[in-house]
Amino acid sequence: MNTTETGTAGYQSLPFDAAKLDELLEEAGIDVLVVSSKHNIQYFFGGYRFFFFDHFDAIGLSRYLPLLVYARGRPEDAAYFANPMEGYEEALGKFWTPRFEKGWGTVPIMEQAAAHIARLGKSAARIGVERSFLPADAEEALRRSLPDATIVEAVVPLERLRAVKTPEELDYLREASSRVVDSMLAVIAGHGPGSTKLELTEALRREEVQRGLNFEYCLITAGTSNNRAPSEQVWGEGDILSLDSGGNYKGYIGDLCRMAIQGEPDAELVDLLAEIEAIQQAARVPIRAGARGGDIFASAEPLVRQSAHGNTLDFVAHGMGLISHEAPRLTGSGPVPYPGDDADRPLQAGMVLSIETTLAHPRRGFVKLEDTVVVTEDGWEAFGDGARGWNRGGTAVA
Amino acid sequence: MNTTETGTAGYQSLPFDAAKLDELLEEAGIDVLVVSSKHNIQYFFGGYRFFFFDHFDAIGLSRYLPLLVYARGRPEDAAYFANPMEGYEEALGKFWTPRFEKGWGTVPIMEQAAAHIARLGKSAARIGVERSFLPADAEEALRRSLPDATIVEAVVPLERLRAVKTPEELDYLREASSRVVDSMLAVIAGHGPGSTKLELTEALRREEVQRGLNFEYCLITAGTSNNRAPSEQVWGEGDILSLDSGGNYKGYIGDLCRMAIQGEPDAELVDLLAEIEAIQQAARVPIRAGARGGDIFASAEPLVRQSAHGNTLDFVAHGMGLISHEAPRLTGSGPVPYPGDDADRPLQAGMVLSIETTLAHPRRGFVKLEDTVVVTEDGWEAFGDGARGWNRGGTAVA
Repeated sequence: MNTTETGTAGYQSLPFDAAKLDELLEEAGIDVLVVSSKHNIQYFFGGYRFFFFDHFDAIGLSRYLPLLVYARGRPEDAAYFANPMEGYEEALGKFWTPRFEKGWGTVPIMEQAAAHIARLGKSAARIGVERSFLPADAEEALRRSLPDATIVEAVVPLERLRAVKTPEELDYLREASSRVVDSMLAVIAGHGPGSTKLELTEALRREEVQRGLNFEYCLITAGTSNNRAPSEQVWGEGDILSLDSGGNYKGYIGDLCRMAIQGEPDAELVDLLAEIEAIQQAARVPIRAGARGGDIFASAEPLVRQSAHGNTLDFVAHGMGLISHEAPRLTGSGPVPYPGDDADRPLQAGMVLSIETTLAHPRRGFVKLEDTVVVTEDGWEAFGDGARGWNRGGTAVA
Repeated sequence: MNTTETGTAGYQSLPFDAAKLDELLEEAGIDVLVVSSKHNIQYFFGGYRFFFFDHFDAIGLSRYLPLLVYARGRPEDAAYFANPMEGYEEALGKFWTPRFEKGWGTVPIMEQAAAHIARLGKSAARIGVERSFLPADAEEALRRSLPDATIVEAVVPLERLRAVKTPEELDYLREASSRVVDSMLAVIAGHGPGSTKLELTEALRREEVQRGLNFEYCLITAGTSNNRAPSEQVWGEGDILSLDSGGNYKGYIGDLCRMAIQGEPDAELVDLLAEIEAIQQAARVPIRAGARGGDIFASAEPLVRQSAHGNTLDFVAHGMGLISHEAPRLTGSGPVPYPGDDADRPLQAGMVLSIETTLAHPRRGFVKLEDTVVVTEDGWEAFGDGARGWNRGGTAVA
């Protein structure tokens, strides 16, 4: 164990809204927060991600487990329990917490965090943790070290804390979105008929990385298939293509879907994409600060119900940011099941929405648009909003 | 929930050594294995990683949690509990398990897995899990669903299962290693004095991705500093540089360290690197199938002890593969603490070792070589073994 007292200067200008955090913790009945997910560690340290474990966790017989301890209302008592190599980052001034300790492995590091909580006189506190991002052995170590504490779930207050983005976060999301779409256009223009979905995915990965993004994934369909996994399937002459890719810029995800075709779309394909576009645009109409979140659905769903393709048409809207589905939670349906309990709350300026309309057409294939829309005081702004029609494949190929 | 019975054809040619697995589970007293880490899921499915969650886990109020249930000696009873989008992969024939179920979230998916264990009549079994890769809420769901079961740690038998690599795995490690070194050489040649460590790291990321790798990290020092984090520090005229980067090819990690300099090394720098090279080569001498793992240390450590830099010199050797530090575990010292309990066991052909000698020189800066060495029947082979001297910066710059 290696401990550093970094002094108390840093916490006076925290990179998050501590008053809002304290209010959310009070509502949730949480005295002490123990943050363990990489995305929330990043949020509390204003963009920090430890570079060594950005892409993996496992090492030796255990894993990387960063722990930030925050006692409600007492940033001066906060402490960060880190991997020893994060000493390099501490030397660069990355951490505002007055206390910094190093340790290896899930159990020893949690025992260090629990000892700090005990030192604060909080051994019998209600401790909020992220249970799906806290390893079982670490939670057991916490319970064993502080048998009088009550452990509760903190994921909802943490999600609410992140729901309204700062101007800097919006800049990152804008960059991520436009770079993902630019990358897609480069891949589409650079590939004539004959490439496989695996080749297109690898090309998109390289285009995103060249643009400074971290490539996350690409859901991809070609031709009349509705299978969205990269595979040896060929994007052939006359075939449509859907590219639905996530890439992050400084941790913030761009996640959009655009369509392409080898050749020219026929009238039916033009109509199908136009119908999806109409739903996507209808969804935007009510968006502004103060509007009900549920109004997005109220505006889009009549078009879905009227459609001849209603049973294969799916409309979803959800918040996004450091993770691809987060608050505001607007729907109980869609691919990710969670309560749509923000539907009756007002939208706030700075919330970022992913809006998706998907048609898994049994005869023509997979047609989808997915957009990123930020709520503003008097309306909305869409990031990476170009290239919404049938983009032609291979136009840049000699 | 969506269940598919995929039939029993697939499990007759499993992509891992089921007999060895059963023996390891028997030794560990494990009746049923529940695998949850991405690296072990990949291992059991012969290279499979679900593309959508390859780089992140969080979604909605929970996360991705794949679960493979394997009852000892009964591959025909195995089942895979997957994210619904993995249905695309199932349609492509990626899973040998006779049963495939889909579900969202850590708790529901574990309840599905527990129900399967109960159906097999194993409700009171000893269940092996990866506790540092099993979320606390999922382990609680397992205990609640199967109150008569005993939950034990399975990380050691799983690590032993992976310790000897197949020819295909060795090919991936060879590719990963040589591509990492090629990427480093491209970055070094492409940068004259004046680039920052952040710029060099980003350039290395792009070079690795262009070569088909997934970039993992780069530990980097410049000049006389021993701080290994990417930063705004400039690699200037006359400065040395260390690049220690991990990049994976199909999940298998290349992890090597090479040195560079802007200009020409003086005699002291030449001597320092020669001393490290001598230790690295001494470590290889005893390596062959059947040799004691500890003989690597016996061969290298006299040179470390004799060195004038003994107190700033560090020698480590450890296994590697899907994760960067794994079996064989040869040392109790070094940066990752775990028991050196393979030191007295014989090395086996196909084991892969990372061998590292590090000098954190207080006046000249950080000098290190790290190599990847595979054990063969009659000796060893080193992957990516070039570029071991002082590589000159900026040679490709106009």
